[in-house]
Amino acid sequence: MSELLLRTSGIIIIGNEILSGRTQDLNSRYLAQRLLSIGIIVNEVRIIPDIKDQIINSVNELRNKYNFVFTSGGIGPTHDDITAECVASAFDVDLPVNKDAKKLLENYYLTKQIKLNSSRLRMARIPVGAVMIPNPISVAPGFKIKNVFVLAGVPNIFQAMVENIIKNLEFKFSIKSTTITINKAEGDIAEKLSKIASLYPNVSIGSYPFENGLIKGTNIVISHYDEKLIKEIAKFTEKLK
Amino acid sequence: MSELLLRTSGIIIIGNEILSGRTQDLNSRYLAQRLLSIGIIVNEVRIIPDIKDQIINSVNELRNKYNFVFTSGGIGPTHDDITAECVASAFDVDLPVNKDAKKLLENYYLTKQIKLNSSRLRMARIPVGAVMIPNPISVAPGFKIKNVFVLAGVPNIFQAMVENIIKNLEFKFSIKSTTITINKAEGDIAEKLSKIASLYPNVSIGSYPFENGLIKGTNIVISHYDEKLIKEIAKFTEKLK
Repeated sequence: MSELLLRTSGIIIIGNEILSGRTQDLNSRYLAQRLLSIGIIVNEVRIIPDIKDQIINSVNELRNKYNFVFTSGGIGPTHDDITAECVASAFDVDLPVNKDAKKLLENYYLTKQIKLNSSRLRMARIPVGAVMIPNPISVAPGFKIKNVFVLAGVPNIFQAMVENIIKNLEFKFSIKSTTITINKAEGDIAEKLSKIASLYPNVSIGSYPFENGLIKGTNIVISHYDEKLIKEIAKFTEKLK
Repeated sequence: MSELLLRTSGIIIIGNEILSGRTQDLNSRYLAQRLLSIGIIVNEVRIIPDIKDQIINSVNELRNKYNFVFTSGGIGPTHDDITAECVASAFDVDLPVNKDAKKLLENYYLTKQIKLNSSRLRMARIPVGAVMIPNPISVAPGFKIKNVFVLAGVPNIFQAMVENIIKNLEFKFSIKSTTITINKAEGDIAEKLSKIASLYPNVSIGSYPFENGLIKGTNIVISHYDEKLIKEIAKFTEKLK
């Protein structure tokens, strides 16, 4: 199976609360695991502040570099929620209030007996040419424009949106991996492992040391599309035990 | 107090295990909080794989953009630990085995009755012109070259290295912040809050919704060097209650 089947992506986490360390980012890890399971590699994660130019530049840089870009955060009702307008700017399209999104919000807030004021209505703005991504939790949608997916930052909403888009990104091949645990310190097997790795430059072979009481060991993780190739490398790696 | 006192930084987290979602990055949050406490803003975090060109390009891009750059990961003994050689390449300097670092490793492994083989000796390589950063846990040092700090990826070692460098980065002014909790939904105060924020474009005013049983509320976080300015904005913000 060729490396050509590998699809690439970048994740942009937007928000001062993440960058300041106030809030731990959990979304990029969740998404990376889901993407990997359907054969999309995350090539880069960027955590950036709520600053217009930085958002626009990051979106433009990564959408030209990778097959897919996913953003998280900055699509709520307040003044620091500027992701939608930045993505619209990046694609040089308008950002009108979308009729369907407005109707969704109207119905939702009506049942909740909450006023759909102008701040909340901001969440109904969708760039021209974009497709809405449903939000089963608090209704205000994300959207997809070309290869860029704009998702909420709140983890449970983010995850629900990811599950909504992931099925359309599925591909018939996915990445498999196997882990071999060796009860030797990383430094004791590094030379031989390097030799194995150099024979298979296109296969990801990771080495992760662990300490378990008195036992120092190393987990070797071999990942690739081709299970036969994984088995072949695993056979060599088992000999390091 | 002027915004000129604000110092900028970027963090580069290096490692396939983070990017694949296998391991949760905790280092960038730890460092961001420590830096903020001494008045250094994190302007950007990048999580990137163990790929030579990507490491070199990220280091070069961020070291020219920000006052400080901090890297985490990729300085162990195995074939996928390539951070030191990439940083040396970024600065176009050699990466010899450092005599002092070698001595540290020799002594450490002698007491542990472990062989200092060629893989482990890789950890004694320090770029020409760099200064070692002590590692009180497993000895193998990090290093600082110009405005770039190269730190370990294992969280307890990373944190120990951070504590070793942070005192030299201290500055007499630091960023203060105050949090005002308002028991109203974000959408209900967004308009008024936007008006306050527009009056103080240089002050970070963050809005973070929360749900606590039946209560929907919003935390407003105001951050700046100038405590008088924070108090002034807090007074306006209290009126949203």
